[in-house]
Amino acid sequence: MHRHAPPAIVVHGGAGDLAPPDPSTEVLEAGRLEGVRRACAAGWEILRAGGSALDAVEAAVRLLEDDPLFNAGTGATLTAAGDVELDASVMDGETLRCGAVAVVRDVKNPVSLARAVMERTEHVLLAGPGASAFAREVGFPAHDNALLVTPRQRARWEAARQGAASKTGTVGAAARDVRGHLAAATSTGGMSMKLPGRVGDTPLVGCGTYADDALAAVSCTGHGERIVQLTLARHAADLVGRGLSAGDAAKEAVALLSRRVRGDGGLIVVAPHGEVGFAHNTAAMTRAWTAADGTIVVAV
Amino acid sequence: MHRHAPPAIVVHGGAGDLAPPDPSTEVLEAGRLEGVRRACAAGWEILRAGGSALDAVEAAVRLLEDDPLFNAGTGATLTAAGDVELDASVMDGETLRCGAVAVVRDVKNPVSLARAVMERTEHVLLAGPGASAFAREVGFPAHDNALLVTPRQRARWEAARQGAASKTGTVGAAARDVRGHLAAATSTGGMSMKLPGRVGDTPLVGCGTYADDALAAVSCTGHGERIVQLTLARHAADLVGRGLSAGDAAKEAVALLSRRVRGDGGLIVVAPHGEVGFAHNTAAMTRAWTAADGTIVVAV
Repeated sequence: MHRHAPPAIVVHGGAGDLAPPDPSTEVLEAGRLEGVRRACAAGWEILRAGGSALDAVEAAVRLLEDDPLFNAGTGATLTAAGDVELDASVMDGETLRCGAVAVVRDVKNPVSLARAVMERTEHVLLAGPGASAFAREVGFPAHDNALLVTPRQRARWEAARQGAASKTGTVGAAARDVRGHLAAATSTGGMSMKLPGRVGDTPLVGCGTYADDALAAVSCTGHGERIVQLTLARHAADLVGRGLSAGDAAKEAVALLSRRVRGDGGLIVVAPHGEVGFAHNTAAMTRAWTAADGTIVVAV
Repeated sequence: MHRHAPPAIVVHGGAGDLAPPDPSTEVLEAGRLEGVRRACAAGWEILRAGGSALDAVEAAVRLLEDDPLFNAGTGATLTAAGDVELDASVMDGETLRCGAVAVVRDVKNPVSLARAVMERTEHVLLAGPGASAFAREVGFPAHDNALLVTPRQRARWEAARQGAASKTGTVGAAARDVRGHLAAATSTGGMSMKLPGRVGDTPLVGCGTYADDALAAVSCTGHGERIVQLTLARHAADLVGRGLSAGDAAKEAVALLSRRVRGDGGLIVVAPHGEVGFAHNTAAMTRAWTAADGTIVVAV
């Protein structure tokens, strides 16, 4: 079913506040829009060449992890202890295979480690030192935690210690390939000033990420604890399964997040026919997607 | 709604094979039946006295964690490295608050630590060394990992290293209190011979455990990776929400587990009116529940 239909990809760079009107934050916002555009374009190139949705979402998320302007990989927010602890997950809608890592401190691209958990173990989630040991075993080089910390995040952490508001953010991608298969991936540094060991929605299948060819591919962002309470990614996928459009499913999932647990966040959705949807109840959610003609569209 | 209705509790001690007809395993099976009976009775006493569903499921699961015949707390299975790593979660159906811990090595009763995460942090899941640090901070004494290892599990680990089949098992409880509120809790040592850091369904909200007064309280057991792929606890709760009885929702959830991902396991369900259900596709699932007259019923 859905063979040789046009591929689709949507990418997000996190839901949050609008940048205040200030030259420095405007530069940041422009950089983020360029970041999601590049990530979306990289995924699209893979899909256009006949590559898999899984390869496309991994490639898109890797670029966002490496981009210091996003809260994932390099540039992640810091824990209360002042370190980076990373979470990521990936799911293949064709087979329902999934992989995830949590509380990882020494890997440059957690989304690729999550994929290795999926493909090279019998497990779906490895956390903490066990995830690092596995990373070394399968050849991911040890990456110094200090290299993941950017000056901007160190400064924000210093401010947070003085009582400034704590923020969240996440990156993710959802895609459909020419064979009609769906995939989703999500990666994050989590909530700023989180307790060491805290795991949010991102590495939890059904919460931050879900993909099932029969339902939808979904990646969430926002207040992870609230998203977990509702297993929001699975919920949104189920709504598509019950006949809602990708856009309406995203809207209804966000409405539930607001109404039921007063959570802030957003999500992106790709339906089985390649229809793309998104919604957020935050002021902004940086995102990019491909239009039917292959043009990349970006929005805040 | 549902005020002053009779309380209900159901407890499981894991899904798995039937014990082979051998005097030593018959003793084990009898001990397990007595274990789930005692756990169910402890929870029932709390409910009958007007206590909360949350208190009841925590008390029931603590007893099973302390019982060396179950794969949770003392008596848990060992990882590939020969240690115990524990996972647990708890969820309150009234508020949708939830708490969980994963990869915990030095706590006697992980279900109570999960409850502390729920009640004393802004988070829902702490994993690894961060969970231990939090445990010390809130007064859970350090419990030597060696005290969690029973001679039986050490012998099984030695056998597993020689290539014997690896088994899973989990304990859990779901309850409804006299005020009509639901709660569920689950605790496990996870899959035998698991990679260090492996997290299964048990500490993942929506996978091993779910509770929502408007839907149902659910605790799952079985092959965790397969349960995660389907966010099975949330799925079963949704089925009750769509009008299925607790028993039919359990059966349909297990049928999906078999059909969609060829997973082995089972689950227990308590519906909003206190109706109890369970199902498993394994040969056995040790369980106990209260009949309408308060009698405790046990079954394999």
